[in-house]
Amino acid sequence: MRQAGRYLPEYRETRARGRDFLDVCLTPDLAVEVTLQPIRRYGLDGAIMFSDILIVPHALGQKVWFEEGAGPKLEPLRLIEDLKQLSPGAMAQALEPVYETLRRLRRELPREVTLIGFAGAPWTVASYMVEGGTSKDFALAKTWAYRAPEEFARLIDLLVDATADYLIAQVEAGAEALQIFDSWAGVWPEDELRRWCLEPIKEIVRRVKNRHPDIPIIVFPRGVGIMYEAFANEAGADALSLDTTVPLSWAREHLQDKVVLQGNLDPLLLVAGGEKQRQGTRVILDALADRPFIFNLGHGITPQASTDHVAELIEQVRAWRPGS
Amino acid sequence: MRQAGRYLPEYRETRARGRDFLDVCLTPDLAVEVTLQPIRRYGLDGAIMFSDILIVPHALGQKVWFEEGAGPKLEPLRLIEDLKQLSPGAMAQALEPVYETLRRLRRELPREVTLIGFAGAPWTVASYMVEGGTSKDFALAKTWAYRAPEEFARLIDLLVDATADYLIAQVEAGAEALQIFDSWAGVWPEDELRRWCLEPIKEIVRRVKNRHPDIPIIVFPRGVGIMYEAFANEAGADALSLDTTVPLSWAREHLQDKVVLQGNLDPLLLVAGGEKQRQGTRVILDALADRPFIFNLGHGITPQASTDHVAELIEQVRAWRPGS
Repeated sequence: MRQAGRYLPEYRETRARGRDFLDVCLTPDLAVEVTLQPIRRYGLDGAIMFSDILIVPHALGQKVWFEEGAGPKLEPLRLIEDLKQLSPGAMAQALEPVYETLRRLRRELPREVTLIGFAGAPWTVASYMVEGGTSKDFALAKTWAYRAPEEFARLIDLLVDATADYLIAQVEAGAEALQIFDSWAGVWPEDELRRWCLEPIKEIVRRVKNRHPDIPIIVFPRGVGIMYEAFANEAGADALSLDTTVPLSWAREHLQDKVVLQGNLDPLLLVAGGEKQRQGTRVILDALADRPFIFNLGHGITPQASTDHVAELIEQVRAWRPGS
Repeated sequence: MRQAGRYLPEYRETRARGRDFLDVCLTPDLAVEVTLQPIRRYGLDGAIMFSDILIVPHALGQKVWFEEGAGPKLEPLRLIEDLKQLSPGAMAQALEPVYETLRRLRRELPREVTLIGFAGAPWTVASYMVEGGTSKDFALAKTWAYRAPEEFARLIDLLVDATADYLIAQVEAGAEALQIFDSWAGVWPEDELRRWCLEPIKEIVRRVKNRHPDIPIIVFPRGVGIMYEAFANEAGADALSLDTTVPLSWAREHLQDKVVLQGNLDPLLLVAGGEKQRQGTRVILDALADRPFIFNLGHGITPQASTDHVAELIEQVRAWRPGS
């Protein structure tokens, strides 16, 4: 999950210098700085580059902006003709600041800290592109996919191409692991989940691995419940990131012999803190951490999280030993 | 799921008479009328009383109102002291119009149409009471539950009492089946899901069955994924309502020998219509309908649904035969 954010005073200070969110993502000086802030403060094992999944539609030429408190906004695509406004050819140039950020991070990060790149999965990115922002029920994007699947497939295919190229270029700029976020995967019946989420992710993983066979890829199909098992079996990823709702004993039994697991503390426990946070952390470690495991949150950290609670969490995770 | 709604012109006409949503729920003339509208139009097998899960906080004395397009709003409860403002003793009187609606519906509905009553589950209702409306991440309600579980348990216990009493009174007013909606169950780790969703529902089912052993009870723990199995095993309900994301073969294998299933067509297919709707309907029937099964949507119908698509759906469901 994103490590920097409004819960960190140093991040709020950087943001207060008057730049908007997208500017921070696309200005290497600032993106490097905010990526390093949580590493300096907490000495984490991995550093995830500071960026946003909507960098891709921006780089494709769609108008994207962030309103404080209201989430992202996009000039929505609603018709198949609107796809003509996208310029895949211009993408590499537009994303150059991200690659520059990664190159600098590789130089500046301690050698033992893994540099993680990422992208949104095609369905999640497409949902923002069609809805023009976040959505309660994804009515426009889903209805388009149901009504004219061949049209919607053109958008998804375009994003498969763009995302695979983007992730390959991230590796070549220094990313040592990749994560693919399908944050809104949990809204589809099984057949559509396969068509619009699992298959596109599988194709991206295939293309990235074809070029860089050894790059570890983590997939986060948030909210897919029982279908986590299909992602473990079929996506071709090295690791799956579990959302907060996935029961640990089920994950251990059905997923952990197929992929490395990552997850899944409720980020709101970092607001509450105290015994509940310790206990929630403990049950995750006891259930999953005797095998290769990446401790993480089950969803993004909230602005209300306490920096002290984050410090306590990290201390507890570092101190944990199997059978302890 | 709710059968009446803005997709029906006759419903929009009743609403246009200038009454607000809560008024429609609490005025038997209007609530009976809008309950009967979809039955008259479609000849459905069951009629769900027209109401809202937030009738309970309203009846407990919390200020509740509905802003068109913005969803429900409540004067939020944020402190344990705020619970003192609730008046469980006044509830039965405040809910009398609902019971009157049910008594009239029993007289007016054809004998073969099952009259269904319902209530929200304690967690879902509590989330609205604390957040003051819908929420993206339920940060206030969840943080309260994590930080002060004994306090939050007082709110949940109060709602268990209120909801059990309310459902028992619905049966006594003529409801022939009950549904409990835990629309926001899918946000908790396993332990908290058990404590705040499964256990309270189980206790409500126990109390209602204790008084009315033969009343069928349907539970809808929306979004709980793998934990549907725990609800099937432990809630004591006769039926489980599946959300759209539950894979059908998994439901058949893991749930259907324990409870009757209900569900789970994506309501957005009723916007799209056509072959996708027919195919989505067909796969549900083929997977689940050779055993006792209630065909339904996987979530509430949307205002954009087409009345013609609903008619086609009902025709297809009625015409289906095992092996056909």
